[in-house]
Amino acid sequence: MGVRVYKFGGTSVGTVQKIQAIADRILAEPDYGHVVVVSAMGHTTDQLVALCRELSDSPDPREYDALISTGENVSAALLSMAIIAKGGNAISLNGAQAGIYTTNGHKRATIQRVNPSRIHDELTKGNVVVVTGFQGITDTQDITTIGRGGSDTSAVVLAAALGVSECHIYTDVDGVYTTDPRIVKNAQKLPVITYDEMLELAAMGAQVLHPRAVECAKEHGIVLHVRSAFLLDEGTRIQEVHTMEWQRAVTGIALKKDEATLSVVGVPNQPGIAATLFSALGDHNVNIDMIIQSNEQQNTTNTITFTVSEDDFLEAKAITETVAKTLGADRVVGDTSIAKLSIVGVGMISKPGVAATMFRALAHAGINIRLITTSDIKISCAIDMAVGEAALKALHEAFDLAAANA
Amino acid sequence: MGVRVYKFGGTSVGTVQKIQAIADRILAEPDYGHVVVVSAMGHTTDQLVALCRELSDSPDPREYDALISTGENVSAALLSMAIIAKGGNAISLNGAQAGIYTTNGHKRATIQRVNPSRIHDELTKGNVVVVTGFQGITDTQDITTIGRGGSDTSAVVLAAALGVSECHIYTDVDGVYTTDPRIVKNAQKLPVITYDEMLELAAMGAQVLHPRAVECAKEHGIVLHVRSAFLLDEGTRIQEVHTMEWQRAVTGIALKKDEATLSVVGVPNQPGIAATLFSALGDHNVNIDMIIQSNEQQNTTNTITFTVSEDDFLEAKAITETVAKTLGADRVVGDTSIAKLSIVGVGMISKPGVAATMFRALAHAGINIRLITTSDIKISCAIDMAVGEAALKALHEAFDLAAANA
Repeated sequence: MGVRVYKFGGTSVGTVQKIQAIADRILAEPDYGHVVVVSAMGHTTDQLVALCRELSDSPDPREYDALISTGENVSAALLSMAIIAKGGNAISLNGAQAGIYTTNGHKRATIQRVNPSRIHDELTKGNVVVVTGFQGITDTQDITTIGRGGSDTSAVVLAAALGVSECHIYTDVDGVYTTDPRIVKNAQKLPVITYDEMLELAAMGAQVLHPRAVECAKEHGIVLHVRSAFLLDEGTRIQEVHTMEWQRAVTGIALKKDEATLSVVGVPNQPGIAATLFSALGDHNVNIDMIIQSNEQQNTTNTITFTVSEDDFLEAKAITETVAKTLGADRVVGDTSIAKLSIVGVGMISKPGVAATMFRALAHAGINIRLITTSDIKISCAIDMAVGEAALKALHEAFDLAAANA
Repeated sequence: MGVRVYKFGGTSVGTVQKIQAIADRILAEPDYGHVVVVSAMGHTTDQLVALCRELSDSPDPREYDALISTGENVSAALLSMAIIAKGGNAISLNGAQAGIYTTNGHKRATIQRVNPSRIHDELTKGNVVVVTGFQGITDTQDITTIGRGGSDTSAVVLAAALGVSECHIYTDVDGVYTTDPRIVKNAQKLPVITYDEMLELAAMGAQVLHPRAVECAKEHGIVLHVRSAFLLDEGTRIQEVHTMEWQRAVTGIALKKDEATLSVVGVPNQPGIAATLFSALGDHNVNIDMIIQSNEQQNTTNTITFTVSEDDFLEAKAITETVAKTLGADRVVGDTSIAKLSIVGVGMISKPGVAATMFRALAHAGINIRLITTSDIKISCAIDMAVGEAALKALHEAFDLAAANA
C-alpha cells in the first residue's frame, strides 16, 4: 500500500469544523496509508508565547519548548479523534512517540534522525498516523521545537524517513504564483517551480513555505506539493527541473517592501574599509543584502551604500555611525522608504538579455534603480517604496507572465 | 537534604500571577529539595473536554488522554519557567519523563510503578522538579490520564516513591472543617482527621480531597496536609490516629443534597427479590446507598426503599419499574427532594450513645428520619431536603463541634 505524507498548517486546523473537513478528506482515500503532520490550531502558539512573556522576557528555552509544543499535541489528538469519530482508524503520535530525534538546541533544534518503527507499526495496523509537527525529542527525552517553518520541515523529514517521494503541504493559499495576486490581478498559479527558485522567492518574502523546508526537500529529493486545504485543485509542485526543458526565463517576481538603505559618505579610499564595516554589522547579527561602492571627489573618497531590513535599520544605523567615525567618513545617510524588486528564474541562466529587459521595463515606467544585485537565477533592484507596486506590474507585463502560465 | 512533595490544584495555578506566587513560596525555602505536582490551569481541562465533545459524544479514549493531558504540560512548564525567571533552578517533567507508569486503561488508568531516577537526578542537580499531575505513560509510551482526583493521587504516589512521609496538598480551601462553613458559621477547621473519617466525609461530598488520593495515602502511610495555596497557615493533616488517644466522638458532619429515594411497594415476600433488583441496578452502574425493607399487609408483601444520587434517578427509576413489573410488585414511588445527613468519627467506636444523641437532636428539631444506615465510624440519615441545613446546624450544636475544635 502506498503511503502519503501530508502537512496541514495552523489555519487549516483552526477550528473543529476544519479538522472534520480534513478527516473527511483523508477518509475519502482509503487506498493509501496516511501520515499527517499538523501544526497548532490557529493562534494557539501565539497565545502560549504570550503567557511566557508574562513570566519573562527571555523564558527558559527548555521550558519554552515544553510549553509551546503542547499546541501541536492538541491539534494532533483532535484530528485523530475526528477520524475515529467518523469511523476511521487513527492514532496521534507526539515527537517522542514518532521517533523524531533532534539536537539539544532548544527553540531551534535540528532534526538529526527519525526512527519510524512506531509509524510503520501503526500504518501496518491500518491507522492514519497523525504526527505533531514542529517538535522532537532529544536523546535524554527532553522536548524540543525546531523553529520557524518547523512543521513543513517535520513533514519533509518524515517523507524522507518513510521513503515517500512527495510531500503534500496543505495551506491557506492554493499554490505559488508568478507574483503576489493581491497586487497583480492576473498573476498566475505556477504548476511547477524549482527548489532554487522557491528559495529565492521565499527569501523575498513569499511566505508560502519556509526556506528551511525547501532546502530540506531539495536535499532529500522530496517533491513538495503546495496546495489549498480547502480546495481539491492541484497546487504547485516544487521539484528539480532540468534547465534544458525550461522554456521560461522568469518564473516569478517578488516585491519586498520592508527594506532600508544606509550610505556611508566620504569614506577614505583605502583597503579594508568594507571589511571593517560589514564585520561590525555581522557581529551584531545584522544581515546585509545589496552593497554598492561608488567613487567620488577625484578618487580620494568613496560612498558605500547597502540595504538592511527595516527591522534592523536603527541598530544598523547606530553601528554604522560608530564605525564611520573611526574610519574618518563624512556622514551616514539612511532611507527607510525602500523596496526590493526581484525577478527569479532558473531559465535566465540560459537566456541572455533578461537583465536588459528588466532595466528597460523599469526605465520605461520612469522608475529609478538605486542598487542592483544578481545571482545565477535572480536579479534584484532596490527602488523607492512608493513606486514598488507599479514596478512589479510593469515587470509582470514585460515578462508576459500572465500569458506564459495561463 | 530533605525533600518536600507538594501538589497545587487548578485554582492555585489559575493565572500567571498565582503561578508566580507559588514560585516565590518555593524559593522561600531553599533548604529543601522540592517536587511540585501541578494540575491544569483553572478551566483548561473543561475547555479541552468541550473541544472533544464537538467532535464526538464518546471520543476515542487514547486521544482523549493525549488531548487533556496537555493542560498539565502547560502549567508545569509555566511554573518551572516562573521559578527560573526569579533566579531559581527548575525543570518540568511530564508523566513519561517523571517515570510514572500506568495501566493501559485510558481516562482512568491506575499508576502501577514509578521510576524516580530522573527526579532524583534533577533534585541532585539542585532543580525544583515540577511534575505534571493526572497523567502517566504506559509501557508502550502511550499517554494516559488517571481520572478524577488524579493530581492528588500523583503527588501521593510520588511521595511514596521518593520515601517522603508527608505530602502537602495546596488548594483553594484552608483545611477540612467540622462541617460546611458556608452553612454553619461556627464550623471549625480540624487540625487532624483520620484517613477513614476523611474517606467518609469525601464520600458525603466534602470535595477537599478525592477519596482515591486518601486511600492511596492510607495505603502508603503518607500524611496528607491539606492547606491553602494563598495563606501560610497550617491546614488539616490526614493521618492515622490511635483511637485510644481520640477524645471526640464525632469529627465532622456532612450534608449531601443531591439524593433521591425510590420505593418499590407491594413486593411479594419471598427470597431473592432484593438480589434481583439490586443486580439489575448494579449491571447499569447505578450506585445504591441506603436500603431498608419494611413489612406490611400481614406479612404478605414488603416495601423496599433505597437511595440513589439524583443524577442516576431517572435511569434507576426506569430499571426499577421494569424489575418491579417482573416481580409482580404494586408500584414504584420516587422522591427527589431528599438529603443525606451523616456524622463521622472514629471516636464513636469507643463511645456509646452517639446514635441516640443524633436521633434525639433531630427529633428535638422536629425532623423526620426516612432511612438510617450505619458503619463503624459513620451514621447517616435520609431526611427531607428542605430541612437539611436546619438538621446540620442542630447536630453541629448537639455534638458541640464548635467548642471541641476551637
